[in-house]
Amino acid sequence: MNTPESELEAKAKAAKTASKRLAYLSTEVKNKALAYIADDLLTKKDDILTANKLDYKEARASGMSAAMLDRLLLTVERLQAMAQDVLTVAALPDPVGEVFEMRTLPNSLMIGKKRVPLGVIGAIYESRPNVTIDISSLCLKSGNALILRGGKESIHSNIALARLVQKSIARAGVPDGAIQLIENTDRTLVNQMLKMGDYIDMVVPRGGAGLIKFVKENAVMPVVAGGIGVCHTYIDRSADIGMAVAIAYNAKVQRPTVCNALDSLLVHAEIAESYLPKIAVEFAKAGVEMHCDETALSILKPSSGLKLVPSTDEDWGKEFLSLIAAIKVVPSLDEALNHIERYSSGHSEAIVTEDYTAAMRFLNEVDAACVYVNASTRFTDGSQFGLGAELGISTQKMHARGPIGLKELTSYKWLIFGSGQVRP
Amino acid sequence: MNTPESELEAKAKAAKTASKRLAYLSTEVKNKALAYIADDLLTKKDDILTANKLDYKEARASGMSAAMLDRLLLTVERLQAMAQDVLTVAALPDPVGEVFEMRTLPNSLMIGKKRVPLGVIGAIYESRPNVTIDISSLCLKSGNALILRGGKESIHSNIALARLVQKSIARAGVPDGAIQLIENTDRTLVNQMLKMGDYIDMVVPRGGAGLIKFVKENAVMPVVAGGIGVCHTYIDRSADIGMAVAIAYNAKVQRPTVCNALDSLLVHAEIAESYLPKIAVEFAKAGVEMHCDETALSILKPSSGLKLVPSTDEDWGKEFLSLIAAIKVVPSLDEALNHIERYSSGHSEAIVTEDYTAAMRFLNEVDAACVYVNASTRFTDGSQFGLGAELGISTQKMHARGPIGLKELTSYKWLIFGSGQVRP
Repeated sequence: MNTPESELEAKAKAAKTASKRLAYLSTEVKNKALAYIADDLLTKKDDILTANKLDYKEARASGMSAAMLDRLLLTVERLQAMAQDVLTVAALPDPVGEVFEMRTLPNSLMIGKKRVPLGVIGAIYESRPNVTIDISSLCLKSGNALILRGGKESIHSNIALARLVQKSIARAGVPDGAIQLIENTDRTLVNQMLKMGDYIDMVVPRGGAGLIKFVKENAVMPVVAGGIGVCHTYIDRSADIGMAVAIAYNAKVQRPTVCNALDSLLVHAEIAESYLPKIAVEFAKAGVEMHCDETALSILKPSSGLKLVPSTDEDWGKEFLSLIAAIKVVPSLDEALNHIERYSSGHSEAIVTEDYTAAMRFLNEVDAACVYVNASTRFTDGSQFGLGAELGISTQKMHARGPIGLKELTSYKWLIFGSGQVRP
Repeated sequence: MNTPESELEAKAKAAKTASKRLAYLSTEVKNKALAYIADDLLTKKDDILTANKLDYKEARASGMSAAMLDRLLLTVERLQAMAQDVLTVAALPDPVGEVFEMRTLPNSLMIGKKRVPLGVIGAIYESRPNVTIDISSLCLKSGNALILRGGKESIHSNIALARLVQKSIARAGVPDGAIQLIENTDRTLVNQMLKMGDYIDMVVPRGGAGLIKFVKENAVMPVVAGGIGVCHTYIDRSADIGMAVAIAYNAKVQRPTVCNALDSLLVHAEIAESYLPKIAVEFAKAGVEMHCDETALSILKPSSGLKLVPSTDEDWGKEFLSLIAAIKVVPSLDEALNHIERYSSGHSEAIVTEDYTAAMRFLNEVDAACVYVNASTRFTDGSQFGLGAELGISTQKMHARGPIGLKELTSYKWLIFGSGQVRP
């Protein structure tokens, strides 16, 4: 009898088998498969939208918030955008097969590294169904097989999307089994998946802090995680005030729901009185609620029309993912660095300064995936960094740090060309 | 009251604090610290040798095998070799601070990566006390703090060595806490260590398969592991017989107790009758016991003076670490590839061939850290590959594959130099 457990086992085995053929698949076949996916997303949009309506209806009935419902919703426009993203991945260079660091040793052995896929990626993600297509296209292009485990809320959409992908890539000649979806949403299957070290080479959790923590603590295979961004922008005393307003405003307001958005604004005491009222006016226009420490509050209180709230200890080190900024006045660069060291999640941190030494100290001393001088932290993104698409932003130091693009989904092997050498 | 658990917690915190200063320590200070360690290993040899005698005595009394006792033993010559290895690490280029992939984006952001230490490395290893010095010097040079957890059998030696290292590096100006040894050998402390994701950035288990499995399954932080090498050498039908004898002999006999030594010899049926008797004579001279499949046995049986044993299923995929070779005759390259795929541990695999296409297929299709044509697998080693010293050989695909040298003990951060850029 087929149990959900034996089905997952079978899918994982099939993915592992497929991964061995995927590793040598030509770029041409992979790109053709991606083009088919992009086509089919549009020509078969009715199937997808019907499935998505079912998810949407169930989610609304269960009382899901408007913001979450919006993340769940697919529309023709969103399918078009998804198709466009797939074509973008197709247009990126194939990372697999790159040969690098090749050299000849004194004993005439020629040795170097060749880039190869990781094997089988396990993706565990929450409600956005477009992630199913994003991750599929990145894994396919990088020659990895994939086991998808999406959220319960978008299961009908995910099933429709995964079946579409499976059919599209089969037509292009991609081996069967390359992309698998776990259709049973029982939580115990996640546990089982995280123990399948023989079949799954890397797990990528995409979602909230709880999911990431659970995966890290329970997976027997390597995990590349990120997503949590507690991002600081520090306005140094020497900052150009206009630039500092523009950068903090962009970091907070341009897209507040994402991980590289500003959470805490640190302002040097010497510039606070001239800077804070200016950024506060802009923040107020955008509806930003400001959680201010005592000094910031005393500076801003006289202004009218601001959403001011006294900060509490919980505001520091918090990822707001909304139009809230914590604001703190610091007496020195050192204090800013200490605050960031204590509260940073290691994602993206910025300084705005005209002082060369302050800039260089910040770059050297801040321990984060991306450290900025005089720019918005919103640039932390695979596309913005010129890597093409991304699977996420890693805030860990192993394997990949920062945007996880195609190259970060690969490993390498050493190739050694000999002519009879033996070790003396 | 200090419990072993609270002591470990304090040590881990101290290592984390030290790691922040270690990250910016100048190459000069690090090299001076290494030179002091090398000096002190010789000038304070009596303390070390006294402690080691204690371990040796206890181990012998407990019935430890001669081979294990030999691994435990320190002598003046071995201390000299250890000191020399420390100086070799000092002479290697400092990986920290390297800036790479720096470029200017169309929006004039200048972005690139800077190499930084990982932070705090946890090392869990079995009885050889020289590992204490090896790992300490590699971590120090790469700017990482270190928590050492050695085997019970060498605890007195490890305490003496770790104290020596701590004193030597303090004299050079390395921050306190950089190198910690867990002196309590209670197994529960390993469990505690593996849960300290807030303080330890990477764990490296060095030892047998049981230790590695345990660490992989229980660590919440990334693990880089290896050590298990089930290494095949495949003699293709087109092989040069003299070369094939020399390579297989070297791979098996030159140092049989290590992970890159030959375990299984696969021989193409068309060359088996001419090749097998020749390698068997050489193996016999070195005392190699041959576990032969039926075909190999029928070819070799008429010869005299060979240690022949019929192979069993357990011989395939087994790491012998001794003068035993499993020998199998295969009908084709495809069969050799299938056998390797099934039984390889992903360490080092070799083909001996004069056939270009066979060589290229082997390089492409074998999934291992190091894939050889016409050379001995014994070359898989950080020094032999020109990386200087190594912490071990990784058989996993994430982060580092193959020899783990100084560069593999680092991460990077993205540096972004802006001039007021905001995201459109």
